[in-house]
Amino acid sequence: MKAVYFFGNGKAEGNKDQKNLLGGKGANLAEMTNIGLPVPPGFTISTEVCLDFVRTGRYPRSLEPEVRAALAKVEKAMGKKFGDAKNPLLVSVRSGARASMPGMMDTVLNLGLTDETVQGLIAATGNERFAYDSYRRFVAMYGDVVLDLKPQTKEERDPFEELLTAKKQARGVENDTDLSAADLKELVGEFKAAIRKRTGKPFPESAEEQLWGAIGAVFRSWNNKRAIAYRKLNHIPDSWGTAVNVQSMVYGNMGEDCGTGVAFTRDPASGENLFYGEFLVNAQGEDVVAGTRTPRKIEEMKSEMPEIYEQLLDVRETLEQHFRDMMDIEFTIERGRLFMLQCRVGKRTGFSSVRIAVEMAEEGLITQEEALKRVEPEALNQLLRPVFDAAGKKAAVGEGRLLAKGLPAGPGAACGRIVFFAEDAKEWKARGEQVILARHETSPEDIEGMNASLGFLTAFGGMTSHAALVARQMGKVAVVGCGQLTFDYPERTMTVKTPKGEVVVREGDWISLDGFTGEVISARVETRPSEVVAVLVERSLEPRKAPVYRLYAKLLGWADQVRVLRVRANADQPDQSTASVAFGAEGIGLCRTEHMFFGPGKIEPMREMILAETVEERRRALAKLLPLQRKDFAGIFEAMGPRPVTIRTLDPPLHEFLPHERAEQEELAQATGRTLEQVQARIAQLHEANPMLGHRGCRLGISYPEITEMQAEAIFEAACDVAAKGGKPHPEVMIPLVGTAKELEVQAKIVRECADRVFARRKRKVNYSVGTMIEVPRGALTAGEIAKTAEFFSFGTNDLTQTTFGLSRDDVPKVLSSYLEQEIYAVDPFVSIDEPGVGKLMEWAVAHGRETRPGMKIGICGEHGGDPSSIELCHRLGLDYVSCSPFRIPIARLTAARAALRDGAKMSAPKTAPKAAAKPKAKKTAARPAKSNHKSTPSKAKPKAKTAPGRRR
Amino acid sequence: MKAVYFFGNGKAEGNKDQKNLLGGKGANLAEMTNIGLPVPPGFTISTEVCLDFVRTGRYPRSLEPEVRAALAKVEKAMGKKFGDAKNPLLVSVRSGARASMPGMMDTVLNLGLTDETVQGLIAATGNERFAYDSYRRFVAMYGDVVLDLKPQTKEERDPFEELLTAKKQARGVENDTDLSAADLKELVGEFKAAIRKRTGKPFPESAEEQLWGAIGAVFRSWNNKRAIAYRKLNHIPDSWGTAVNVQSMVYGNMGEDCGTGVAFTRDPASGENLFYGEFLVNAQGEDVVAGTRTPRKIEEMKSEMPEIYEQLLDVRETLEQHFRDMMDIEFTIERGRLFMLQCRVGKRTGFSSVRIAVEMAEEGLITQEEALKRVEPEALNQLLRPVFDAAGKKAAVGEGRLLAKGLPAGPGAACGRIVFFAEDAKEWKARGEQVILARHETSPEDIEGMNASLGFLTAFGGMTSHAALVARQMGKVAVVGCGQLTFDYPERTMTVKTPKGEVVVREGDWISLDGFTGEVISARVETRPSEVVAVLVERSLEPRKAPVYRLYAKLLGWADQVRVLRVRANADQPDQSTASVAFGAEGIGLCRTEHMFFGPGKIEPMREMILAETVEERRRALAKLLPLQRKDFAGIFEAMGPRPVTIRTLDPPLHEFLPHERAEQEELAQATGRTLEQVQARIAQLHEANPMLGHRGCRLGISYPEITEMQAEAIFEAACDVAAKGGKPHPEVMIPLVGTAKELEVQAKIVRECADRVFARRKRKVNYSVGTMIEVPRGALTAGEIAKTAEFFSFGTNDLTQTTFGLSRDDVPKVLSSYLEQEIYAVDPFVSIDEPGVGKLMEWAVAHGRETRPGMKIGICGEHGGDPSSIELCHRLGLDYVSCSPFRIPIARLTAARAALRDGAKMSAPKTAPKAAAKPKAKKTAARPAKSNHKSTPSKAKPKAKTAPGRRR
Repeated sequence: MKAVYFFGNGKAEGNKDQKNLLGGKGANLAEMTNIGLPVPPGFTISTEVCLDFVRTGRYPRSLEPEVRAALAKVEKAMGKKFGDAKNPLLVSVRSGARASMPGMMDTVLNLGLTDETVQGLIAATGNERFAYDSYRRFVAMYGDVVLDLKPQTKEERDPFEELLTAKKQARGVENDTDLSAADLKELVGEFKAAIRKRTGKPFPESAEEQLWGAIGAVFRSWNNKRAIAYRKLNHIPDSWGTAVNVQSMVYGNMGEDCGTGVAFTRDPASGENLFYGEFLVNAQGEDVVAGTRTPRKIEEMKSEMPEIYEQLLDVRETLEQHFRDMMDIEFTIERGRLFMLQCRVGKRTGFSSVRIAVEMAEEGLITQEEALKRVEPEALNQLLRPVFDAAGKKAAVGEGRLLAKGLPAGPGAACGRIVFFAEDAKEWKARGEQVILARHETSPEDIEGMNASLGFLTAFGGMTSHAALVARQMGKVAVVGCGQLTFDYPERTMTVKTPKGEVVVREGDWISLDGFTGEVISARVETRPSEVVAVLVERSLEPRKAPVYRLYAKLLGWADQVRVLRVRANADQPDQSTASVAFGAEGIGLCRTEHMFFGPGKIEPMREMILAETVEERRRALAKLLPLQRKDFAGIFEAMGPRPVTIRTLDPPLHEFLPHERAEQEELAQATGRTLEQVQARIAQLHEANPMLGHRGCRLGISYPEITEMQAEAIFEAACDVAAKGGKPHPEVMIPLVGTAKELEVQAKIVRECADRVFARRKRKVNYSVGTMIEVPRGALTAGEIAKTAEFFSFGTNDLTQTTFGLSRDDVPKVLSSYLEQEIYAVDPFVSIDEPGVGKLMEWAVAHGRETRPGMKIGICGEHGGDPSSIELCHRLGLDYVSCSPFRIPIARLTAARAALRDGAKMSAPKTAPKAAAKPKAKKTAARPAKSNHKSTPSKAKPKAKTAPGRRR
Repeated sequence: MKAVYFFGNGKAEGNKDQKNLLGGKGANLAEMTNIGLPVPPGFTISTEVCLDFVRTGRYPRSLEPEVRAALAKVEKAMGKKFGDAKNPLLVSVRSGARASMPGMMDTVLNLGLTDETVQGLIAATGNERFAYDSYRRFVAMYGDVVLDLKPQTKEERDPFEELLTAKKQARGVENDTDLSAADLKELVGEFKAAIRKRTGKPFPESAEEQLWGAIGAVFRSWNNKRAIAYRKLNHIPDSWGTAVNVQSMVYGNMGEDCGTGVAFTRDPASGENLFYGEFLVNAQGEDVVAGTRTPRKIEEMKSEMPEIYEQLLDVRETLEQHFRDMMDIEFTIERGRLFMLQCRVGKRTGFSSVRIAVEMAEEGLITQEEALKRVEPEALNQLLRPVFDAAGKKAAVGEGRLLAKGLPAGPGAACGRIVFFAEDAKEWKARGEQVILARHETSPEDIEGMNASLGFLTAFGGMTSHAALVARQMGKVAVVGCGQLTFDYPERTMTVKTPKGEVVVREGDWISLDGFTGEVISARVETRPSEVVAVLVERSLEPRKAPVYRLYAKLLGWADQVRVLRVRANADQPDQSTASVAFGAEGIGLCRTEHMFFGPGKIEPMREMILAETVEERRRALAKLLPLQRKDFAGIFEAMGPRPVTIRTLDPPLHEFLPHERAEQEELAQATGRTLEQVQARIAQLHEANPMLGHRGCRLGISYPEITEMQAEAIFEAACDVAAKGGKPHPEVMIPLVGTAKELEVQAKIVRECADRVFARRKRKVNYSVGTMIEVPRGALTAGEIAKTAEFFSFGTNDLTQTTFGLSRDDVPKVLSSYLEQEIYAVDPFVSIDEPGVGKLMEWAVAHGRETRPGMKIGICGEHGGDPSSIELCHRLGLDYVSCSPFRIPIARLTAARAALRDGAKMSAPKTAPKAAAKPKAKKTAARPAKSNHKSTPSKAKPKAKTAPGRRR
């Protein structure tokens, strides 16, 4: 087992693909060396040695000679000798695990300094203060890291900090930099004395002893408390271990021809293809981090250090061509010479990830497949939603205006004046105000006020509460379940419990909601609108004037070429349908008819129907609803063209439609010629202990077949109307909450008989199908039976999750926080489908459903339909489509493409052949995508049939 | 294919085992003939002919010659000729399907009468009036049945009834019997004219034509509307068909040496071994049915017709020995000669079914296995519960005192004075009153008042509502979900909507509840107490003075010899535990700890705990609860001896323990030093939209680990206390509502750590295990994972049914009635486990649980544990035990035995060898049980290990 990997002089024993063995830092140092970048020479001790050391407490026998040999190579490359009194080699010892674990493990710099070698350093640099400053830093670091003098609690104090402070007080100075070389030299002595006192042993005066001490300390740090806790939190296995990187020191603080800096090969915020970074002259890396001096923009280097700047531009080019990604680099300039200390793939915003991926693919640096893989689907939200002006938000938070934090249920940024009643939201909007609606919780009655608001804020409910669902469907910003809020509706105020006391927010106050983070800010923070929405939905911007839209369209165009899963929208209204199509919906997967019963002229006959005591009375009320539903359906069919529209029959329990307030109840009583007592009695009668498990879904249609009849009639009449005007409507009638085959049989019969009647009357036929939601476990378990009647299945994974777990999404906040904290649930099952439970039922239902009805169309229309990890599961399960809120359609399209790629799919027709990387050294990796594209011969490519999706299984 | 089966002259072509081919009536007529009983000769046309005829509309070619041949044999046996003018043979033509379908299909009597043959009948009987009376009856019956003149709607009138009425008016008489022979002769003519008018054809004057007409009519009647509807209701397949029985007529109405009667070979009500029946002299069977004359007791025949009576006693003996069961017979005496017209296994009460089965086994007539198979488990209820005095109840109902009907949730009969508050029930009971507690619904707070009541009546809730559960657990009578009731608590009245208007019941009024039927009677109906309970539980009766107890003990002793499933009790208190053991419980399968938190001194610290705002505060309150729980557990361990006691940790949501009424809330506020607002705020905070799916079960223990700790400590301390006194307690700690393996891990760790602490402190160890309930689908789906921690599973099928169907048991009444009516559910899934859904999950959990942990102990503790069909399923699934309410333990023991027998089990050591049947003719069937007993050699018998049950799979 080789333990030590040297790098230096343009040749490394390792490479970037050995991250498991050498850690991320070590692998990239080797790679940079190999591609000719100026890396200070050094060596990496492998993670295998760490694991061995952790297990046995000892180093393998081969380690010492290998370290010795590698060190000799470093000495040779640097022309210095480790521990030499004249020309000493100094090194850094750093940990470096497979995944970045920032600040979790330990580092020692300037290692190799002793009372002897420091003289050599003075001689070599001609700078005594610099040498002693380095020395005292090294002794303190070594004491902390290797000799365990680092304070373990907040109460303890660092002995070296104490001595430094005492020294500054004695000298009457304020800054470290005001201490003289002599002061620093004294400090070295005092530090060493402190170490001897605390450990009982002298500070090691042998460079070699120092080195082995530091190596052991880094390995041991893999199992320190912080590192263990971090790994647990980030799901990093203990079995990975860390590597140790020993590298010769270079100094950016030796004078005006020295410096240090960090840079990104493209702008990490905007993604723009320009060199972006900061640097400091005569400084070490820690000065940049500490923020004691303000770094300068990298462009200024052009005039200050033109040669170095040119070199850096070359490095940038080399790295991008080689790594084929935007890289984050650290560099140091020692006496006019550039050294690369680190490089890694750069972190970026969602926005820049899209721009970088698309532009790199256009540049031919990466393939379109890679571009798709590079963009996390959620990143698209930053292209679709308004976002805050970053400076504005920072300023407001800085001023202490951050009020509270809730659940980010509707992404985006919204700023407006707060109102507490849905009616007010409508009124204020009408007079031109931007409004935010805040309520304890919202209910279907609030729907119009919600439409008039830019965002919603609620105290109650989770990620699938009413406010959250509506927000995602309407594309509004929402922060929900914000428990710190209490409402005083009569006073029109909201009180917020904050750590600093209570804050009262009054009607009309400005408030800003960050739907990405859940933050609630009591200030007016400016927002930037979404180009994509302006182009596609509002049609207020021309595409050619919208560069962001161009990126979006490009990326999603590629996604559509590769994905197999179709994407539909959950939409209830014509305008939502239009927006869905603009976002690329291939149909409607869930049209909830209950939303159609709210609003003027609709809720009244609905309530009349519910209060009815006889079938005849009920039919009379339903007859009033029929034309209203028909009109809604016709609008949707028109908007969707020939795309399928899945319409769910009435689902929620009837009591949801009745008024809660006495005044409204009185109104209702008067309007329907009843007494208040009668109305209240009916409300009491409809009360349910567990409405989620109550009289709803197909159970309503079975108790009141006339409701299903009316809805079917409205659907088929609307379809005939639209067809008569030349449309090609394609309704799919979906019966909810089916648990037994017989329930569906009974309801499907009503629907089919109704279709026959309407078609006969209209002398016209329209293509339609009847299917069901699979949303209770029994529906999944008996899917084989149900498929005898069902022509399609659609998984209602919200309810399926509730019933599979026995956990109400309305009540989930009480349970969920401690569950996620204790890692009882790895992920909120209402956000991502729970694969071992809910996923198992889905798998069962797909298998048995298609056994009965081969090739059966199966989709999903729960909220999970817009969640990337759930979409991947749907792809693996062989579903035909996912359906989600309109604003999540682009995310779903991208996720579906990524799932297909992961499954081995290839682009059917790449528009740009990626060019081979420019530099010969990068051959091995850069060649891979090109190669795989050549491989995708036409016979292997999966053409995406746009009208009839081929079944995968 | 043989189509016709003759019987007569002591020899039949069929036998009793051919019910599928000959129908029940035909097979038993054949059998009676074969064993030498006097059966009027005749023949049966098989069901296969019926099916053929229904399918093709034609008879098979062979039918006519076979009928002719059989008819010839009948003629020969009777010495008469069919259609002969001198000595005509008359026959009846009756349907007879495999299962009895009373009144659903058609019968024609006196067939063969024509204007010619009637003269022969006159000559043979010397009774013109009798002959014409028979003739007119025949013509009318034939017209109705064969020629379709029977009215099809209520508005239509029967033409023959009209003519008869007209004739009586014309003659100025009131009764049919007052019409003369001449009148009747005229009527025959008028009937025939009517037939000709309506059908356009003359009445058939050929006996043969009549016969074929009648045969066809009977076959066609298989598909008449009534029959189809009846089959659908009773789940009788259309594919069975009916047989046709053609039998020579005998007459009981030819004079004083004639008669007719029905009898049972034992008393069908009490089961006593005596001949029980009724007869009429000079009458036909229809006179007994019509109730125009009051029949006399069969004993009176002894003096009146001593020879016939002796013959009947012989018949009785023969039939019982042959059929080895209590039989129901019909007979006719024609001129001093006895004829058997029908025999079938007699219907009986639950009570008599036990007595007959046990006594027949003791007599050696049947085996003990057969005795077990003969008693429907639910029949035991009649031995365990008080029952109404039948005459008393009949009288009260007759007086119109039947108020309402609800769901029979707790079997038995209870009579007492009505009260509307639990406190009143306690008070009234204390002053010696018998009380019935009536409430809109009951809640855990009512528990003491419920204990003081004989029965409960509620307006709300289903078979698994709180009142129902408590009733079954306490052995109380309950009628629940009686929607016609409304309560006015301040006025202390209950108003009942009845078809005749509203009835107001006032506090203190006498009321009687029939928990077998759900009837509510506003009267004082006397009840008879249960001997079994008096002996076993109350110990107020000596066993030797309790003959019913003897039967019970005998039967259940046999059951215990054969069953494999163990039976445990759901019991929460020491007294319930003692009763459970008396009923044969082999352990406690479910001890619900929440019931222990109600009652004085307990609810207060519980509420304190719930209101606590810090862990410390909560711990202080829990410390007060600890000794109370410990005492309860110790009492249970003492009562149960070494039997396992499964204790479930706290399950219901905390809000169930907080008071609903303002006054009580104020009290609580004062007691805990809080404001009313604070208490109400906490109640509001704990409110849940769907409590069933809320913060309950192990979720409580995860949010508040200190609750689980306290409970575990109480369990193990109690166990140590009891062990210190020489007991052998065996606690099994059960964590509820587990859906993920991690939940159980977290809770099991707390329990085990607590056990270690207590054992160390007490210097004593007690055997225990930790397991979980499988009661949400996810628990079942991930059972393999959960079994890594769980040492046992117990299915909580109540909750599992709710979540699998997505149907709340509290809200189920709104849904269930129409579902059962439309046959969407074949059976209430809260009564019997739904096999295709819930059963599938159980099967999965058993398989995967035992895959992880071979031989794992698995039981059921939901309410289904006491339901026979569910117990059978549990046996098939390989469960180790069922657990049910104490009063259902005997039922469960019997059901488990029957399930084992069905599965092929044999009695291990039969105490009585059944003697071979006495009569040689009965050899074939009577020999079977003896044979099978001889076969059960010791090696094949399954000995029932009492301490370690062998696994079946």
